[in-house]
Amino acid sequence: MNSLIPDVHLLGCEGLSKQTITTILSLAQFYRNKSDEGERFQLLNGMTVANLFFEPSTRTRTSFEIAAQRLGAQVVNFSSQGSSTSKGETVTDTAKNIEAMDPSILVIRHSSSGIPHLLAKCVKIPILNAGDGFHEHPSQALLDLLTIQQSKTNVQGKKILIVGDIAHSRVARSNIYALNTMGAQVTVCGPPTLIPPFPEKLGVQVEIQLEKALPTADVIMMLRIQFERQSAMQIPSKGEYAKFWGLNERTIRNIKEDAIIMHPGPLNRGVEISPAVADGPYSVILNQVKNGVAVRMALINLYSRAPLPQEWFEAEKRSSHV
Amino acid sequence: MNSLIPDVHLLGCEGLSKQTITTILSLAQFYRNKSDEGERFQLLNGMTVANLFFEPSTRTRTSFEIAAQRLGAQVVNFSSQGSSTSKGETVTDTAKNIEAMDPSILVIRHSSSGIPHLLAKCVKIPILNAGDGFHEHPSQALLDLLTIQQSKTNVQGKKILIVGDIAHSRVARSNIYALNTMGAQVTVCGPPTLIPPFPEKLGVQVEIQLEKALPTADVIMMLRIQFERQSAMQIPSKGEYAKFWGLNERTIRNIKEDAIIMHPGPLNRGVEISPAVADGPYSVILNQVKNGVAVRMALINLYSRAPLPQEWFEAEKRSSHV
Amino acid sequence: MNSLIPDVHLLGCEGLSKQTITTILSLAQFYRNKSDEGERFQLLNGMTVANLFFEPSTRTRTSFEIAAQRLGAQVVNFSSQGSSTSKGETVTDTAKNIEAMDPSILVIRHSSSGIPHLLAKCVKIPILNAGDGFHEHPSQALLDLLTIQQSKTNVQGKKILIVGDIAHSRVARSNIYALNTMGAQVTVCGPPTLIPPFPEKLGVQVEIQLEKALPTADVIMMLRIQFERQSAMQIPSKGEYAKFWGLNERTIRNIKEDAIIMHPGPLNRGVEISPAVADGPYSVILNQVKNGVAVRMALINLYSRAPLPQEWFEAEKRSSHV
Repeated sequence: MNSLIPDVHLLGCEGLSKQTITTILSLAQFYRNKSDEGERFQLLNGMTVANLFFEPSTRTRTSFEIAAQRLGAQVVNFSSQGSSTSKGETVTDTAKNIEAMDPSILVIRHSSSGIPHLLAKCVKIPILNAGDGFHEHPSQALLDLLTIQQSKTNVQGKKILIVGDIAHSRVARSNIYALNTMGAQVTVCGPPTLIPPFPEKLGVQVEIQLEKALPTADVIMMLRIQFERQSAMQIPSKGEYAKFWGLNERTIRNIKEDAIIMHPGPLNRGVEISPAVADGPYSVILNQVKNGVAVRMALINLYSRAPLPQEWFEAEKRSSHV
Repeated sequence: MNSLIPDVHLLGCEGLSKQTITTILSLAQFYRNKSDEGERFQLLNGMTVANLFFEPSTRTRTSFEIAAQRLGAQVVNFSSQGSSTSKGETVTDTAKNIEAMDPSILVIRHSSSGIPHLLAKCVKIPILNAGDGFHEHPSQALLDLLTIQQSKTNVQGKKILIVGDIAHSRVARSNIYALNTMGAQVTVCGPPTLIPPFPEKLGVQVEIQLEKALPTADVIMMLRIQFERQSAMQIPSKGEYAKFWGLNERTIRNIKEDAIIMHPGPLNRGVEISPAVADGPYSVILNQVKNGVAVRMALINLYSRAPLPQEWFEAEKRSSHV
Repeated sequence: MNSLIPDVHLLGCEGLSKQTITTILSLAQFYRNKSDEGERFQLLNGMTVANLFFEPSTRTRTSFEIAAQRLGAQVVNFSSQGSSTSKGETVTDTAKNIEAMDPSILVIRHSSSGIPHLLAKCVKIPILNAGDGFHEHPSQALLDLLTIQQSKTNVQGKKILIVGDIAHSRVARSNIYALNTMGAQVTVCGPPTLIPPFPEKLGVQVEIQLEKALPTADVIMMLRIQFERQSAMQIPSKGEYAKFWGLNERTIRNIKEDAIIMHPGPLNRGVEISPAVADGPYSVILNQVKNGVAVRMALINLYSRAPLPQEWFEAEKRSSHV
């Protein structure tokens, strides 16, 4: 039973302390290093991770599944298709039922904002929010922070530019909270219709013109234009979007030499990002994916209160005593 | 290779002997106790449990999956969507194919009554019926018996009231067979159109008015009104059904003080059961779910002829010698 | 790290050397024997097999999944339904993303011919083609060869008759390449519209009339008529097809006494094969399924470069030194 994290659930990055984020990133970096060396763990032997995905997802579900397996846990995948939900069961009843089967942790994705918070009031086992509506996607933000930290040593003081449909992006929202907590300076950029109404309340600056925002950014974080969701209606056309807010060989001409380009995926190649940029030297997109598994190992390990890796724990204790 | 169960397959509760039911419940209670203490088992190491679900299900499939994992088995999930079945393969060919891949046990759910019996004639490996059409759902009935036993010490002599669409319920049917075998007195209640034509042949009494049936019941077992199936057509409206055969704070006013209220899930809150009753002090609904995993561990263990837990087996031998 | 196979990927049987096929079949036979004895392996402990199925499949996916589990590997299943692909992600981006999560091997099925070859240019981890469009299905051909070898001792010099929609069958194509390499004599048979235009280039003989082709065949390999695909349009009717190119008690009257009848499944009973023949004494169809798991164990083991079973490796070294 570890107790490094004060909260029971990870519902979002809002309100997450600097200390908690630092602990998560430290353990995630440990797991990233060990995974690169092919090491596997048995810390969650006999434990079950329940993946409740009420919304289609491959990337995130698979990432959590592989993370769980690398810790020695077993995984039960639950999807809303062909399930009790389609028989009219409430989401809280579904969660309580899964809880009664004694998994160690619930990973939840839902298309409605706030569902993980609702469930947190009904169940006692830890919940990891894997994305809820337009609200938060904390594990994505944490893997983004880890990626920034690896390239820039520190998140503190860095200029982060987030480009796209800021208003409807749970990735943007979680990143803004976490980046602000860690002391980064966040600027958001995108079509005026897709900028949230009171950006100053979120602690971010706004720049509508991409060309003006790019040259000073240390980190350029492109968001996916979600044509399958609301944002599509607020964009004149893919072509026009690409022309004004897409990253391509022309628009990146004036970026910092050591800037990094990020994208949470899946990519709309040729819309928000051109193939040459996505696969080019500034891109750290596939490193984000690698870090995703490591961050989710850390989250599952910490929030399930499973035993922590001795080696990391000793090092962590030493460094915090200094 | 254990041999405590005389039958190869578990196709239904009809014809199941009192001895067999007692053995299953005893092992299930052992697994329930051990699971509550967090213990896991390796008795099925290297064995595979094949889940063949030709009908949507989450609760039952997940319960069997977790049960298999807790015994150390590996699970292969097969669903009819996107499968050979949609390419015109017969269900017996599908089962024979899965059998040729050498799993230790087949767990089968199908929307047609009798499919498990058909397959039992074609394959040699043990089949566990996880629900077939309007016919039987034996693992549900066994977990219901375990739940009754935990609350009432004994099933023998208890008055069990089953309320709902008796005619189309495989849960009711399996429970009636098993409860009768164990010496309970079963009364069924519901709209006259949903009572099977010759209830006396099933060994049950009929009471159409819920108010009359409730006060003497030790166990009140509510059935799910399956709006996605036939029963909906035979019910005037959800509101009317709820008024006459739904359990709510008003209707439970005259129930026994130590009565328990059960429901196999998923719940139609506000129809057959009100939220206050489902979440109230008489409800043992989530205990049923917990017992579900334990009963399925017992079934997989016994019918796969895997080694039995030594501790339970010794105790079982001692108690049957007395 | 084993290095018995010169190629990184298994994209098809075209170009596969006799030595490579022999090695695969030898290890597969070893695994078949061991599986029949109930033995399980831990050679891929801590490794992950990623199943990327962009096309519905049960048989093949389950076979790969069970094969991976028997080697001690963990499996992540990815299907195109409800995935990033439906969000417009390219298949290469999906594969690169999965690769970034560090599985040991990718098993890929896709409805478009050539996708595995395309991916082989983008990712570094080994790819096993589990069927691509009308092109190849190498693991099926290899399990067919193993089945022939078990019945006929040798593939060399045997007369193999392949019956059905040759033009659109990836099973036929992979078998033709592998059988030719191993020195068999292949004849194809089917409606003239379903025979590929230049059969001599594939190294096969053509016989349109089934009656003429049957009496000399050592192996009769029936193909599935894929009513869900193109072939249906080129067939007058199921009845007519069954009459002229279906195998039934009448048409098998003149086959060799020791001939074997094969089918890759799923069966269209009563169309390309009658129930009496499918379940009759010449049929080795379920043995093919059993061999499927063994062949896929060999493929996963060899191409993932995981440690090989010592016992087999020693025997293999001895026999090749003679």
